[in-house]
Amino acid sequence: MTKVIKNGTIVTADLTYQADVKIADGKIIEIGADLSGDEIIDAAGCYIMPGGIDPHTHLEMPFMGTHSTDDFASGTRAALAGGTTMVVDFCLPAPGESLLDALKVWDNKSAQASCDYSFHMAITWWGEQVFDEMKIITEEKGINTFKHFLAYKGALMVNDDELYSSFKRCAELGATPLVHAENGDVIAELTAQLLEQGNTGPEGHAYSRPTQVEGEATNRAIMIADMAGAPLYVVHTSCEEAHEAIRRAKMQGKRVWGEPLVQHLVLDESEYFHEDWDHAARRVMSPPFRNKQHQDSLWAGLASGTLSCVATDHCAFTTEQKRFGLGDFSKIPNGTGGLEDRLPVLWTKGVNTGRITMNEFVAVTSTNIAKILNCYPQKGAVLVGSDADLIVWDPNASKTITADAQASAIDYNVFEGIEVLGLPRYVLTRGYMAVDKGVIKAKEGHGEFVARDANASVNTALSKWKDLTAPRPVERSGIPATGV
Amino acid sequence: MTKVIKNGTIVTADLTYQADVKIADGKIIEIGADLSGDEIIDAAGCYIMPGGIDPHTHLEMPFMGTHSTDDFASGTRAALAGGTTMVVDFCLPAPGESLLDALKVWDNKSAQASCDYSFHMAITWWGEQVFDEMKIITEEKGINTFKHFLAYKGALMVNDDELYSSFKRCAELGATPLVHAENGDVIAELTAQLLEQGNTGPEGHAYSRPTQVEGEATNRAIMIADMAGAPLYVVHTSCEEAHEAIRRAKMQGKRVWGEPLVQHLVLDESEYFHEDWDHAARRVMSPPFRNKQHQDSLWAGLASGTLSCVATDHCAFTTEQKRFGLGDFSKIPNGTGGLEDRLPVLWTKGVNTGRITMNEFVAVTSTNIAKILNCYPQKGAVLVGSDADLIVWDPNASKTITADAQASAIDYNVFEGIEVLGLPRYVLTRGYMAVDKGVIKAKEGHGEFVARDANASVNTALSKWKDLTAPRPVERSGIPATGV
Amino acid sequence: MTKVIKNGTIVTADLTYQADVKIADGKIIEIGADLSGDEIIDAAGCYIMPGGIDPHTHLEMPFMGTHSTDDFASGTRAALAGGTTMVVDFCLPAPGESLLDALKVWDNKSAQASCDYSFHMAITWWGEQVFDEMKIITEEKGINTFKHFLAYKGALMVNDDELYSSFKRCAELGATPLVHAENGDVIAELTAQLLEQGNTGPEGHAYSRPTQVEGEATNRAIMIADMAGAPLYVVHTSCEEAHEAIRRAKMQGKRVWGEPLVQHLVLDESEYFHEDWDHAARRVMSPPFRNKQHQDSLWAGLASGTLSCVATDHCAFTTEQKRFGLGDFSKIPNGTGGLEDRLPVLWTKGVNTGRITMNEFVAVTSTNIAKILNCYPQKGAVLVGSDADLIVWDPNASKTITADAQASAIDYNVFEGIEVLGLPRYVLTRGYMAVDKGVIKAKEGHGEFVARDANASVNTALSKWKDLTAPRPVERSGIPATGV
Amino acid sequence: MTKVIKNGTIVTADLTYQADVKIADGKIIEIGADLSGDEIIDAAGCYIMPGGIDPHTHLEMPFMGTHSTDDFASGTRAALAGGTTMVVDFCLPAPGESLLDALKVWDNKSAQASCDYSFHMAITWWGEQVFDEMKIITEEKGINTFKHFLAYKGALMVNDDELYSSFKRCAELGATPLVHAENGDVIAELTAQLLEQGNTGPEGHAYSRPTQVEGEATNRAIMIADMAGAPLYVVHTSCEEAHEAIRRAKMQGKRVWGEPLVQHLVLDESEYFHEDWDHAARRVMSPPFRNKQHQDSLWAGLASGTLSCVATDHCAFTTEQKRFGLGDFSKIPNGTGGLEDRLPVLWTKGVNTGRITMNEFVAVTSTNIAKILNCYPQKGAVLVGSDADLIVWDPNASKTITADAQASAIDYNVFEGIEVLGLPRYVLTRGYMAVDKGVIKAKEGHGEFVARDANASVNTALSKWKDLTAPRPVERSGIPATGV
Repeated sequence: MTKVIKNGTIVTADLTYQADVKIADGKIIEIGADLSGDEIIDAAGCYIMPGGIDPHTHLEMPFMGTHSTDDFASGTRAALAGGTTMVVDFCLPAPGESLLDALKVWDNKSAQASCDYSFHMAITWWGEQVFDEMKIITEEKGINTFKHFLAYKGALMVNDDELYSSFKRCAELGATPLVHAENGDVIAELTAQLLEQGNTGPEGHAYSRPTQVEGEATNRAIMIADMAGAPLYVVHTSCEEAHEAIRRAKMQGKRVWGEPLVQHLVLDESEYFHEDWDHAARRVMSPPFRNKQHQDSLWAGLASGTLSCVATDHCAFTTEQKRFGLGDFSKIPNGTGGLEDRLPVLWTKGVNTGRITMNEFVAVTSTNIAKILNCYPQKGAVLVGSDADLIVWDPNASKTITADAQASAIDYNVFEGIEVLGLPRYVLTRGYMAVDKGVIKAKEGHGEFVARDANASVNTALSKWKDLTAPRPVERSGIPATGV
Repeated sequence: MTKVIKNGTIVTADLTYQADVKIADGKIIEIGADLSGDEIIDAAGCYIMPGGIDPHTHLEMPFMGTHSTDDFASGTRAALAGGTTMVVDFCLPAPGESLLDALKVWDNKSAQASCDYSFHMAITWWGEQVFDEMKIITEEKGINTFKHFLAYKGALMVNDDELYSSFKRCAELGATPLVHAENGDVIAELTAQLLEQGNTGPEGHAYSRPTQVEGEATNRAIMIADMAGAPLYVVHTSCEEAHEAIRRAKMQGKRVWGEPLVQHLVLDESEYFHEDWDHAARRVMSPPFRNKQHQDSLWAGLASGTLSCVATDHCAFTTEQKRFGLGDFSKIPNGTGGLEDRLPVLWTKGVNTGRITMNEFVAVTSTNIAKILNCYPQKGAVLVGSDADLIVWDPNASKTITADAQASAIDYNVFEGIEVLGLPRYVLTRGYMAVDKGVIKAKEGHGEFVARDANASVNTALSKWKDLTAPRPVERSGIPATGV
Repeated sequence: MTKVIKNGTIVTADLTYQADVKIADGKIIEIGADLSGDEIIDAAGCYIMPGGIDPHTHLEMPFMGTHSTDDFASGTRAALAGGTTMVVDFCLPAPGESLLDALKVWDNKSAQASCDYSFHMAITWWGEQVFDEMKIITEEKGINTFKHFLAYKGALMVNDDELYSSFKRCAELGATPLVHAENGDVIAELTAQLLEQGNTGPEGHAYSRPTQVEGEATNRAIMIADMAGAPLYVVHTSCEEAHEAIRRAKMQGKRVWGEPLVQHLVLDESEYFHEDWDHAARRVMSPPFRNKQHQDSLWAGLASGTLSCVATDHCAFTTEQKRFGLGDFSKIPNGTGGLEDRLPVLWTKGVNTGRITMNEFVAVTSTNIAKILNCYPQKGAVLVGSDADLIVWDPNASKTITADAQASAIDYNVFEGIEVLGLPRYVLTRGYMAVDKGVIKAKEGHGEFVARDANASVNTALSKWKDLTAPRPVERSGIPATGV
Repeated sequence: MTKVIKNGTIVTADLTYQADVKIADGKIIEIGADLSGDEIIDAAGCYIMPGGIDPHTHLEMPFMGTHSTDDFASGTRAALAGGTTMVVDFCLPAPGESLLDALKVWDNKSAQASCDYSFHMAITWWGEQVFDEMKIITEEKGINTFKHFLAYKGALMVNDDELYSSFKRCAELGATPLVHAENGDVIAELTAQLLEQGNTGPEGHAYSRPTQVEGEATNRAIMIADMAGAPLYVVHTSCEEAHEAIRRAKMQGKRVWGEPLVQHLVLDESEYFHEDWDHAARRVMSPPFRNKQHQDSLWAGLASGTLSCVATDHCAFTTEQKRFGLGDFSKIPNGTGGLEDRLPVLWTKGVNTGRITMNEFVAVTSTNIAKILNCYPQKGAVLVGSDADLIVWDPNASKTITADAQASAIDYNVFEGIEVLGLPRYVLTRGYMAVDKGVIKAKEGHGEFVARDANASVNTALSKWKDLTAPRPVERSGIPATGV
C-alpha cells in the first residue's frame, strides 16, 4: 500500500519546489515528478511540509494530586489537528526518585499517543544515583536531553552546584542540558511579598516573575554550561533580557539555543489585567506573557537565527483547576494550551506578515529542533527515508480559533477569537492520515517513542574545542622546597 | 556515461550520512546505497561535500593599466585545486560606463573559466541609465546582486544618496545589495595625513583603515538598506565593530549577512609590521588584517550564525605589482590570494579544532551563499538534480602550504608555511573530474555562467513586511484653511 | 550694596547643605552661616541652586526671510522666568560667509539679552577661510565649540570629509565639536518619497526622521571625531539608537557627551498624530518626539551619566509661521519653545518621581554643561567667586503650564496643561533680581557674553593619549631597491 | 596653631585653581589668596588634592588562625605614605556571630590606625538577629554599607535568598549593599576539578576564576538588588563581563557602581605564569589579574563614568603565608598589597598618559567614594569645613617601586620595578603632617572612625521611584464565587 501526495509544493527549511511525495510503510520512499501510488492525496494549491515538532509539552503532568487535563490521548490528538506530528514531553522524577522509575511512568502514559513522541529527562535532584542513571538514560533509553529547573523552589529547582554537576555529566555523555531559566529564589521572595501586600490576583503571577528574573537565570545557566563544557538549550525564552543573554553568549562562540513559545510571540501581559479573573487565570504560565517590545525581540530572533524553535509548553489545566488559585495566585496551576494552534497562529502572524519566510517557518517549527535533538532527518525533513510525518498546508484555509471547536480537552483557548489564515488540509503521522481534509482521525496508540542518540555534531565539536583550550599546568623551575 | 562516488560519507550543511552519489550529464542523478555506474570514484575514508563557492573574487581585475594577475584561467584552476567549484566575480563598470557594456567585458574574460561562475554587478555611479539597466541586469542577465563601495573615494565610491537610490532600486527589483563597508572619506583623510607624517610603508595601509572606519560604514549601509527596504550583504567583514553592527541589525529583525574572509580568520596585523617590505606589501588588502580579538569575533559569528559565508576576495597581484607602492603605501595594489587555500585552511583551523562542525563548514563555504545568491540547490547541495559540483575530501591528507606548489599565478602565498590537515582528493565540476587524486586536470573553458533569479524568499518576505508597516497619512478633522 | 539669601538649603551638583549666600557686584562673595547684608532674600523652605544653563537655543534665528519669533529679548526673558540664567545660542554663518561676519550679526542681536549668553559657532561650509577663522574664533572670540549639521541637506549640512577636517581643526585648537546628528541624505530621500506618496501632514515629519537615521549619524560623527582626535558633544539626543552609539563610544573610552531635550523626555510621537493640524505642526522639531521606550532610555542616561545635559533647542515659531508648511510638512519651520519650562518640567518629572536626585538635577541643567563648555565655576556653581546666577527654588510652588501666562512671544506651549510642582521663587542674574517672588523683572541688555577658553582638561588629556598612541613607521631592514 | 599650604594649585574632582589652604583643628578653615598662618607648607609646583580614600582594605584580617600581615598600624602607615588618608575596612562576623560583637573586634584593631577609617559590615549569614542588628549598625554605629560575598563557598558566601533578604533590608534602612561578585559554587567545582587534574600551581587560581564567573555573579547581584529596591556597589570589578553587566544595568536606569582595583588596571594574568612560584603566589588575589583587553575596558569605564572608584583590596600576606598553598593553589591566602602605591601608579598610568584627567583622578581616588559612602564633603573635598585630609602632590617627583623601601610590612610588592612619576610631597591627615617631604611621620592611633549616615540622596530617590512603580492589584468585577 503506497500513498502519493500530488500537485503540491514541497517547503522545507531550505527548499521550495514542486514534487510529489510517495509513502510506504510510514516512510517517504520517493520524491519526484509524476509519482503514482495506491492512494492519491491531492495537494493542489498547498504546501507539503514536515510535520511540526513541539519540543515542549507537559501531558498528564502530575500536579497537586491531579494532572494537567490534556493527556497523551487528547494532547497528541490536538497536536495532530494543528499539524504537529511529534511532541517531546518532560519526564519528571520527584526529588529522590529514580530516573528509570520515572521513565516507566511516562512510558505508560504515552502509550495512548496518536503521534510520535520523545522525552526530555528532568534532573530535579542530584546524587550518585542520578549521575549513574544519566548514563543509562542516554546510552540505553534514547534520551539525550536533560531538563533543569532554576525556578519552582522547594519542588523542582536545582542549585548552581547541582546544575554544574549535571551539565558536566551531560558534557561527558554527549547529551544536551535544557533549562527553565527563572530565578526561583527571587520569585519565592517576591511571591511572598506580593501576597502579603494583597496582590493575590492572577496579575500577581506576572508581577512575581519580571523579565529580568528570567534574564538573570538565563545568563547564569549559560555561564555554567560553558564552564562545564556543554551546549545549552533554553526553553520558553520570553523576553529581551533572556534573548540578550543568549545573543551575548553566541557572540562569544558559545553553543546556546533559545525557544520562544507561540503564546509569547502573540499574547501580552494585558491579559493578566483582564477584569475577569478566569480570563486572567487561564493565561497563567511561566514565564508570563510580556509586552510588545519583548515580542518584537522574539520575532527578530526567529528571523535572525538567535532563537531557534517555537514551542508551546502545552500544559492544559481547566478553568476548574485554575480556580485552585482563587485568593492566592501562587496556587494557580501554571500552564496553558497551544499545541493545536501553534502552526496556524505562527503562520498567520509570521509568514503572512513577512516577518519570517515559509522556509524559516518550517525551520522553527520542525527542522531546527529535530537537528538539536539529534533525530534529524528521521523527523523534521521531507527526504527519502524520513518518517512520513507530513502536513499538506492550505495557505488559503481560514478559521477563527475557538475553544468550542478544539481537540484539546480543556474548556477555553488562550487564542480565542484570533483569525488564522493557513491551516493543515492533511496531516500524516508515519504515513497514517490523521487529519483528512480537516477532519481528525487520530488513532490512539499509533504514536511511537523516538529514540535519540547522544554526541550530536555540535556536542562533539564543542568537546574538541574545550579539550584544546583546557587549562594546562605551568612548568616551573622555581618552587620553594617547603612552605616556610 | 555515469560516475559513482562510492564508500564515502556525504556531508552537507545539515546532514552526515553514508551513501553513494551517481552522476550523469553534470548532474547528481541518484543518491543511495550500492549504486553502480560506468566509472567508480572511491571515497573510502572521505567526505563527499558540495563544492566550495567563493562569492568574492576579482579575476583579471583592471588596475592602473594592468590587471590582477590571476585571471579566469589561473584563478579558477586555483579554485578547483582547493575544492572550490564556483566563483562569483565582480563586474566593475567605470563611473559613467554602461552596466551592460561592462558585463560584456566580464563575459569575455570569463570564457576561460574552468569552473562555474556568476557575477555581482557593481554600482559605481548613479543616473537614469544605471536605474534602467539594473532592471535588465536583474531580469535578463541572471544577476540579482549589486555591489556598492563606500571606500575608494574618487574611484568606485558612491555617496549616501546614491546608495539609498540604488538600494531602493534593488528592493523594487527583488535584488540584494552588497557593500564594501569602509568610510572612504575618512580613509582618504587618514592616508594623506599618514603619508605627510612619513608613514609610507605597508603598515600605513593598516593605520589608514582602522576597524572603526569599517564598523561605521557597515552600520551606515545597514541603516540605509533598511530605510530603502532591502536586505544587505556585507562583504569582507573583518572586525568586531562591523560584526557588532550586523548583530545589532539582526537583533532588530533586519535582514543582513556578513562575510568574513579566510585571511582575516587566520592572519593578523603583525604581518604588516614584518621587517621585509615585500612580505608586508603582499598582505595589503582592504580591510587589512586585524588582531586575535577580532578573529575570535569572526569565528564566533560563524559558529553562531551571525556571519554567514567565508570568502577570499581573491585579487592576486605579484610582488612586482605590489612594488608600485614602494614609498607610498596607498599605491600598493590591494589584494591577496586565497582561492586555493580557503577550504583546507578553514577546515584545519575550524573543523579540526572544534570551532565549527563539518556541517557548518559546508554551510559557510558553500550552502549559505548559494541560498543567499538564490542558486540553491543547483549549487551548494548534494541533492538529486543538483549540479555535480562535488568534493571528495580526505580528512587525513596533509600538506604545508607553499607558493612553489600552488596553482595561482602569483609568486607568493599569504598562508606560506601553514600546515593543513584535510584536502580534496577529488574535485568534480558539473561531473568533470578537475582534481584527480590531488592532480589538477582543470579544463579551461569548461565553466559556465550561473544565472540567478531575483525575488528570493527573504527579499519577498521583507517587502511584505515593509508594505505592512509603511507610513500612513493621518486623517484629520482640523486643518487650517490657509497658512495665515 | 550686598544681598544675602538666607534660610535656604544650597543644592549643587554634589552638595546639599544649609548656608546663606552673600552677593556683591554680581558675584558670590561669601557662603556661610548667619551672613548679613544690605538686602535680605528669604529662601525659607527653598533650595538655592545655580541658575540653569540652556546650551541649545536659536533666538531670532533667520528662516526663509523671517526669524524665529523669540529673540534675545523675549527669549532670555522666558529663560529667566523659568530659572535659566544663561543661554548658548548658535551663530550660523551662511555657506560661504565669514565666521567673523556672522559673529557680528549675533553680537548685535544678543545686545537685547537680559541674561548672560555665549555662542557656539556653526561650521556650515569648509575652506581655508573657515580653517583660519576657527583659530581667531577660538583664541580671540571666546568660543571653543563648533557646531556641525549632518542634516539639512543643501543648506547647513556638511559632508564627512568636511566633518573630519573641521573636527581635526578643533582638536588642534583645543576646541570641542558639536553635531546635529541625523543623516541628511536619507532624510531628503524619505521626505521626497513621503510627499510623493501623499504623506504631507505633520506626521510626515516624524516619518521622515526615524530613530535609526539619528542613530546612524551619531555613530558616524563619533567615529570621525575619534579619528580626528577630538571629543564630541552630540546635541538633542532623542532616541535609544543615538544613546546606544554614545554608550558604545564611552565603553571604548571615547570622550562623547549626549544632550537630551526636555521635550523628548516628556512628550511623545503621538503628538504628531493629533487630529488638529496646528497642534501637530507646533510640535515639529528635529529630531521629532519619540515613544516611551526612547524616553526611558534618555532618563536612564541622565541617571547613569551616559547623557550629560538637558537642553531645549528653543526655536520658537508662531502658529502662523508653522502654517508655511500646510500641504507640505517639509516646509513647516522646525522648532518649539521650552526655555521657560525646562526646569519646572524636569523637576516635576524627574526629581519628584525619584528618577534623578536634586543634585543630578543641578548637574544636568547647569553644572555639567558649564564644565563641558569650560566656563565652570564662573557659571554652574554656588561658590565664592562664581557669578551670582542663582535660583531660589520653591519645591512646593505649583502651576499648570499654559501659553496664556508665558513669557515667550509665541501663541502656544508644547507643555500646555502639564502641572508642575517646583518653581523658582527668585532668580538672580549676576546678582540682579530678575524674578522676584515669581514676578519677572528681567532687564533687557543686562546680559553679557561669556567668553570660554579652549583646552579644557578633557581636550588636553585626549590629545596626550592620541599622541601617545599615534601610528609610528616600522623600521625596516628589507626594502626592495626599486619597484621591479 | 594654623597651617597654610601656599603656592600650590588646588585640584578637586571638578576644579583646578590656584589658592592657599588654611587649616586649624584638623579642618580646612579658609581657602583663598595670600593666606597666612603659623606654619607654612610650600606647595610650589604641586597640586593640592583631597587625600585618597581606599574603600576596600582588609587589615589584620583573620585567616586560618593567623592574620593578614598589614594591620591597622602598618597598613594605614602605608596608606599615608602613598597619599591615602582614609581606609574603609571590612568587619567580618563569622557565620552565626553577632554583627555587634564583630564590630567590637574591629573597633579594637583599628585603635592603632594613623589615618581615619570607616567600616563596611559584612553579612555572612542570615537570621532574625542579623535583620535586627542591621538597624542598629545603620542607625547607631555609623555604618551604611553592607558587604555580601557570592564567593568563598562554605565560608563567607551567602545564597540568593539571603542576598535578597539582606538587600531588601538595606533598602528599608537606606543603606547600600556591596558585593564580592564571583559565583562561589562554580569556583568550588572548578577548583576541585583543577586540583584533581594536577593543576595545583598558582596559575590554577586564575583558571578557577574565569572572567565570566565574575560577570555572572555581577549580573545576578544587580538583578537581585533591583528587585529588592536597593542600589548596589560592586567591589573589585576586574573584567569586561562584569563591567558589561554594570553598563547594562545603568542603561536601564539602575543605580550601580563598579570599583576596579589599581592592580587590575596595570597588571595582567601573565604574572601567574611566572616560572617562580613565589612570584606567582604573591599575586594571588580574587578576582585574579586579567588581560589587556579587560584592562582597556576598566580604563574606559573610569574615563566614561561607568566605573566609579579605584581601590586596592589591600590584604597583605607575606611570602611565608603564601606558601601555605604550596601544592594546592586553593590554600594560597588571597590578597596582595597596594595601599601605598595606588595613587602614584594610577597617576603615572592614567594622568600622565591622558587616559584620565587630573580631576578624574581625584574623583576616582577620593571624591566619588566619599559621595557614595555619604561622608562627602567631610572627606573627599577641598572645601572650607572639610577635614584637612590633603595631599600636596609633586608631579615631577619620581621613584621606582620596590618592596625594600615600602611602608607595608610584607616582603614583596606586586608593582616591584614600576617607575612612577608623581608622588606626594606632603600628606596631612586632619591637619597632622603624616608625610613631610616624603618622610613618613604617621602617628599610630591618630586615626578616627568616620561615621556615615544612611539615606544618601541616591537611596532616597530610588526608594521614591520604586514606590511609584510598585505593583498594584487589579480591581476586578468578575471573580468566581468559589473554586469550582
